[in-house]
Amino acid sequence: MPEELIRALGAIKRAAALVNTRAGQLDSAVGSAIAEAAAEVRDGKLSSHFPLIIWQTGSATQTNMNANEVIARRASQLLTQKSAASAIRVHPNDHVNKGQSSNDTIPTAMHVATALQLKLRLLPALKQLQESLELKAAAWAHIIKVGRTHAQDATPLTLGQEFSGYAAQVAAGVRRVEACLPDVLLLAQGATAVGTGLNTWQGFDVAIAEQLAEDTGLAFSPAPNKFEAIASHDALVHVHGALNTLAASFMKIGNDMRLLASGPRCGIGELLLPSNEPGSSIMPGKVNPTQCEMLTMVCCQVMGNHVAVTTAGALGLWELNAFKPVIIANVLRSVRLLADAAVSFSGKCVQGCEANEARIAHHLEHTLMSVTALVPHIGYDKAAAIAKTAVAQHLSLAQAAAQLGIDDKAFRLYVDPKKMLEPFALVK
Amino acid sequence: MPEELIRALGAIKRAAALVNTRAGQLDSAVGSAIAEAAAEVRDGKLSSHFPLIIWQTGSATQTNMNANEVIARRASQLLTQKSAASAIRVHPNDHVNKGQSSNDTIPTAMHVATALQLKLRLLPALKQLQESLELKAAAWAHIIKVGRTHAQDATPLTLGQEFSGYAAQVAAGVRRVEACLPDVLLLAQGATAVGTGLNTWQGFDVAIAEQLAEDTGLAFSPAPNKFEAIASHDALVHVHGALNTLAASFMKIGNDMRLLASGPRCGIGELLLPSNEPGSSIMPGKVNPTQCEMLTMVCCQVMGNHVAVTTAGALGLWELNAFKPVIIANVLRSVRLLADAAVSFSGKCVQGCEANEARIAHHLEHTLMSVTALVPHIGYDKAAAIAKTAVAQHLSLAQAAAQLGIDDKAFRLYVDPKKMLEPFALVK
Amino acid sequence: MPEELIRALGAIKRAAALVNTRAGQLDSAVGSAIAEAAAEVRDGKLSSHFPLIIWQTGSATQTNMNANEVIARRASQLLTQKSAASAIRVHPNDHVNKGQSSNDTIPTAMHVATALQLKLRLLPALKQLQESLELKAAAWAHIIKVGRTHAQDATPLTLGQEFSGYAAQVAAGVRRVEACLPDVLLLAQGATAVGTGLNTWQGFDVAIAEQLAEDTGLAFSPAPNKFEAIASHDALVHVHGALNTLAASFMKIGNDMRLLASGPRCGIGELLLPSNEPGSSIMPGKVNPTQCEMLTMVCCQVMGNHVAVTTAGALGLWELNAFKPVIIANVLRSVRLLADAAVSFSGKCVQGCEANEARIAHHLEHTLMSVTALVPHIGYDKAAAIAKTAVAQHLSLAQAAAQLGIDDKAFRLYVDPKKMLEPFALVK
Amino acid sequence: MPEELIRALGAIKRAAALVNTRAGQLDSAVGSAIAEAAAEVRDGKLSSHFPLIIWQTGSATQTNMNANEVIARRASQLLTQKSAASAIRVHPNDHVNKGQSSNDTIPTAMHVATALQLKLRLLPALKQLQESLELKAAAWAHIIKVGRTHAQDATPLTLGQEFSGYAAQVAAGVRRVEACLPDVLLLAQGATAVGTGLNTWQGFDVAIAEQLAEDTGLAFSPAPNKFEAIASHDALVHVHGALNTLAASFMKIGNDMRLLASGPRCGIGELLLPSNEPGSSIMPGKVNPTQCEMLTMVCCQVMGNHVAVTTAGALGLWELNAFKPVIIANVLRSVRLLADAAVSFSGKCVQGCEANEARIAHHLEHTLMSVTALVPHIGYDKAAAIAKTAVAQHLSLAQAAAQLGIDDKAFRLYVDPKKMLEPFALVK
Repeated sequence: MPEELIRALGAIKRAAALVNTRAGQLDSAVGSAIAEAAAEVRDGKLSSHFPLIIWQTGSATQTNMNANEVIARRASQLLTQKSAASAIRVHPNDHVNKGQSSNDTIPTAMHVATALQLKLRLLPALKQLQESLELKAAAWAHIIKVGRTHAQDATPLTLGQEFSGYAAQVAAGVRRVEACLPDVLLLAQGATAVGTGLNTWQGFDVAIAEQLAEDTGLAFSPAPNKFEAIASHDALVHVHGALNTLAASFMKIGNDMRLLASGPRCGIGELLLPSNEPGSSIMPGKVNPTQCEMLTMVCCQVMGNHVAVTTAGALGLWELNAFKPVIIANVLRSVRLLADAAVSFSGKCVQGCEANEARIAHHLEHTLMSVTALVPHIGYDKAAAIAKTAVAQHLSLAQAAAQLGIDDKAFRLYVDPKKMLEPFALVK
Repeated sequence: MPEELIRALGAIKRAAALVNTRAGQLDSAVGSAIAEAAAEVRDGKLSSHFPLIIWQTGSATQTNMNANEVIARRASQLLTQKSAASAIRVHPNDHVNKGQSSNDTIPTAMHVATALQLKLRLLPALKQLQESLELKAAAWAHIIKVGRTHAQDATPLTLGQEFSGYAAQVAAGVRRVEACLPDVLLLAQGATAVGTGLNTWQGFDVAIAEQLAEDTGLAFSPAPNKFEAIASHDALVHVHGALNTLAASFMKIGNDMRLLASGPRCGIGELLLPSNEPGSSIMPGKVNPTQCEMLTMVCCQVMGNHVAVTTAGALGLWELNAFKPVIIANVLRSVRLLADAAVSFSGKCVQGCEANEARIAHHLEHTLMSVTALVPHIGYDKAAAIAKTAVAQHLSLAQAAAQLGIDDKAFRLYVDPKKMLEPFALVK
Repeated sequence: MPEELIRALGAIKRAAALVNTRAGQLDSAVGSAIAEAAAEVRDGKLSSHFPLIIWQTGSATQTNMNANEVIARRASQLLTQKSAASAIRVHPNDHVNKGQSSNDTIPTAMHVATALQLKLRLLPALKQLQESLELKAAAWAHIIKVGRTHAQDATPLTLGQEFSGYAAQVAAGVRRVEACLPDVLLLAQGATAVGTGLNTWQGFDVAIAEQLAEDTGLAFSPAPNKFEAIASHDALVHVHGALNTLAASFMKIGNDMRLLASGPRCGIGELLLPSNEPGSSIMPGKVNPTQCEMLTMVCCQVMGNHVAVTTAGALGLWELNAFKPVIIANVLRSVRLLADAAVSFSGKCVQGCEANEARIAHHLEHTLMSVTALVPHIGYDKAAAIAKTAVAQHLSLAQAAAQLGIDDKAFRLYVDPKKMLEPFALVK
Repeated sequence: MPEELIRALGAIKRAAALVNTRAGQLDSAVGSAIAEAAAEVRDGKLSSHFPLIIWQTGSATQTNMNANEVIARRASQLLTQKSAASAIRVHPNDHVNKGQSSNDTIPTAMHVATALQLKLRLLPALKQLQESLELKAAAWAHIIKVGRTHAQDATPLTLGQEFSGYAAQVAAGVRRVEACLPDVLLLAQGATAVGTGLNTWQGFDVAIAEQLAEDTGLAFSPAPNKFEAIASHDALVHVHGALNTLAASFMKIGNDMRLLASGPRCGIGELLLPSNEPGSSIMPGKVNPTQCEMLTMVCCQVMGNHVAVTTAGALGLWELNAFKPVIIANVLRSVRLLADAAVSFSGKCVQGCEANEARIAHHLEHTLMSVTALVPHIGYDKAAAIAKTAVAQHLSLAQAAAQLGIDDKAFRLYVDPKKMLEPFALVK
């Protein structure tokens, strides 16, 4: 069971004790002992007391009971320490779990843990990667290179423009994750067993969400429909949809960079990736795009996790989705993988990556697709004839153009890569 | 190739002709002939001239050229009709495709078609289903039934509360689709071949987006980064993420209703689904939950389509994602399936569905989980003892409670399903 | 509903009529009229009478009843034609469906249709592709080229060896599909409604399987456990697993060839793919790897279909899997897509593909990874030093080797690509 | 990196040292020191020296080098112990990795680890589950119950027949896994860097496969095409297809049993699952189908892993698939999850599961679908009328039959559940 979930449980149990005490539902000595013990769970101090794996009951009831019991025992201990005479025993169900059910506490912990990880781990990592890519886009704004569509030579663009596309993908990923957050900030707590709130008090849901919001700085509030909140995990399925989209984005970026760096002598060779470790146990001197490989492997895993989460999310039944542990484990794993991969790829690949300008210039000089710049002047059909002539007779574009009656001066005027990087201005 | 895409292409070619003419890039007679011909494509009048399937080039260049050629031929015809003397031939590339590339036109058509289908087809269908479910939630607000978690009897709720959860799932689905729309309203047009805008004019992107916005009533605008807009289809991968979440929601609803209606005599039997057709070729009189089956089969297909779209979306390379046809075909198919399924399920299943109140009451009377209401009064451990006694000795809950010293009066006071439907009020 | 399924139903209804008649369960005039009518369904002559789509009941009962009714009506007509006086009305349930249920007939039709499509469509297509690849492997056995691992230059191999790997992938795919066939040859017929065989006669299952085997040439036999045969579709999920593996294989082959053919001037450029159509509406003379794109898009779809089939296959309940239409539609679609793609790719891409020997030779000459051949002679560390020197000082490998004390003669002796294509012989 | 892979690497390095020594390629003192050190890795004694995670280079070169270095250091130590005077330093590349590359060693380790885990872990676990189910099928052969199709009451079968279907699913899973094994027994070793076998000796591939076969008892042999063996992992994708089919089977079994056990009082209630732990933190006395939940969660994970493996398997490029770590981690994880789940489910759920015979009998008495037994005697249409009458007027089937003229004696003769469990015998 992911530690983030255990710690979120600690935060929830503490908040519950505080608001139950304030509402007069818990003796204040008991309540504050629970709050203190629960804070230790939240802070990771008692993590070794949570041995359960995710392959347990689908509501993670055992994990909730595990928390109740650890906290009850520790709270009893704290009470005893304070007053040796005290005979108060804190009860795991009647006190720690007061006004709660696994069925609302676990989904609440799932949302709290996910929200925190998205906010504290994934979003900063994405922004770091976005920034690295933007820096490269800026630094390489002047390097004109051949574009490639269908893996075939196409009209030119700058290396900076190419990287601006990657940065835009990551920036959109940030927006998409942020757009999913509001649903994650809605908490099931207060639903108790089936969504009705039986055995808790009116206002408990609002009070605990406010307490958690205060503790974490995240704007938690009660789910408007608590039946939906415990019987489905659509909000997490949808968050994972955003992670899945990020995986698609990262796969593109990783593949592009790996192939732009292919070579060093017999490939595209336009990028020089940092060499982080020896590449081969048999081929001396080989350098491999290991960060691209790490990144794209992570993408495969996240795409797989997405199917696990979707299937599990679809199989709720009546008042409960009983696939909670597998859902949260995959969501938190994907968040962690994408975040760590983004940081690693940013620091160990993007930042140290260099442009092989000589190679880029060589390609630019030889591409035939600059012929496109002639189209507005001589039409598509004649331009196509020039390109085909160049291919058939192994000529440069200028030579082929000359053969079809475009003199060198005209050719140079129109076919200038520098002018091919943006739309033309309308004559006023 | 989906007809919605062809018609979107017609709308785009018309808009391009209009704004190119206004900008002085096309002769006005030619421009208006193209606009007229393209309008016929948009309106579906020339659909029979588009025989291509999706298994073609990954940029759908053939489909773009198909459109260019159909429109050029038809526009030439229109020009000839207007002036028999005219010898003007409208050129598919130089005129109809002016300032465009398949690489920007096809993604634009993908976004236009998707946005229209989401807006005109999916969202209204979802709202219809949501409303049907809300009507049931309201109509059944008074029917108290046993809740079920882990497929096991749990504390009670109303049938209306149960259906309110389904309605909330669909309502969240509406919000999620709407939240994805802004990305779909960003158009690649103006990127031309590789994103630079080569061979089009500054402002073309804004002008054509405005024209399309005016024509459709949707707030289209140019994609802020055109390299991203043609090299990735993250926006559509993410939209399909919202469709995938809807599939998860629908699977839950369909499964729940199918199983609540299981029986008629040897199952749960709490719902009576409308009988739309004979259920069996061998078992006379059998009625099956065919709408639930249709709905859940659609969910399987949409989940599968999601993997197709994600994989295809991840495999863009350099300046182009060359998996466009398979992406758009799956997106539009999922939209259509979910929309049609929502309408059908709403009309043929939800609306005509009835509560089997006798059965529901029978279950409620026999459940042991009402014991939960005793917990605040006698504690978890004693309440558990009562439940276990009832199971072991085949007693009613009241009988078992009596055995353990809870008299009938106290039992009736606490264990009243009507009081178990919401949190208790704090005593001021 | 796929036509292959309808035609399989025709074959089954005919076989059932024949064996029921032989067993004395059907009047022989009625039986032979049904057989004649059913043969027309099998032969596709009545396909226009089957308007139903797959989004119906999950047992496809409507399609079975559709077949029963079409055949009953047509058989009645045939009887009337034979004897004007006849008043016999063939009953769709009591006669055509005799001893059958949708629950066993539809799974039987699913297996019959799948087995036929695998045998007649997919396997021949795969063998055609395998053969094309093997021909290239043989034709190119002499062309030595640089190998590439991690997209980085590696030790050499022949282009023939590279293509032999693709052929081996397809050959393994053939074996895998064949290994799944036995399960598909097991038929549910005789299970009737729930697997017990109620209302049919002992031996019906064997007799009808034998009749179908005789009619089709495929070794059909009764499923040994008929409860499994109608409640699960694991056999089809597993067949689709083999299709999924084929999709993985085809994705590799399509990507490899697309990237080997990248260029023409600024990419790898080692392969020249046939030019089937103009590649660009804006870039004149562009040729794109359209067959690779078609092939890899098909792979995405098949991978998506696999998830649809798996999810649907997992969701059987009690005595029936009620996701039959979505399962069979996806299985047959994947079979058709892979088969058609294999034939098209074989004929329009592999067969016409040519090696760019000049480019290949140029690359081979420049690679640094031939240094690997020095390792057995000078050790890994020194060989690595040579490679690094060559990179750092922009030297050829021979030059760098000379700098580190390997004279030209020794270098030429060891670093000979022709000797790098196989293991060395042990000295006896 | 899974420990099974590390240990397989140990086995391979040991085998390589042995056969290299025998072939005169390694000094015999060095060779036997390596073999001894490698055996320690194989036996898990040095596992703490392998700290690497799977998110590294896609060939797992670092893990291979890790093994080379750990073994070289340990072998040097062993040599020094034997002869204090010895100054021999075992070299990780030149000695331990002799005649090997990460590119062939890692795939070999992937196959060795997978084959061992399938053979030693998964297959025995599956057989244990199959046997538990078969025991229940036998024990319950006499318990007649109502069948259910479409979640609706259908004709009867025995509880034993129902469980025989589950056993048949698992038995087929065993066959499917076994059918995939031959491909896994083919080893890449001998391919070295790109498949040609450069720097190893002719016969190394056969010798090492024989050595590994002898050591493990599994019939390993060299892959017939070594280019395929390192550039694709189709064999593992396909093995995972068999695991995916098992997940579909297990989902069916888990769902069926969970729902048959629904209740205890307001559900189907025909099965009594063992109660392994308290089910609820809020509802006292609740018992949940935790083993079914564990099992079906595992299925979701395996289905997700399958997509990860398929995607990664599809993305090999040229001479290498560089997604090896993510592939093997998911394959081994799925094997372990399915194996552990099968053992746990067998021992903690199937074996202790009991039939609720009273409930089953009650259902059987009330079902209307026994009407099917009348069809051969009175025809489908009249039988349907009886069923509908019973529903409409809340009658028993016998009462409704009487109303439509079937007297009680005839009714009892035909409608006897005991006679509905198999096909009828033809009268000779």
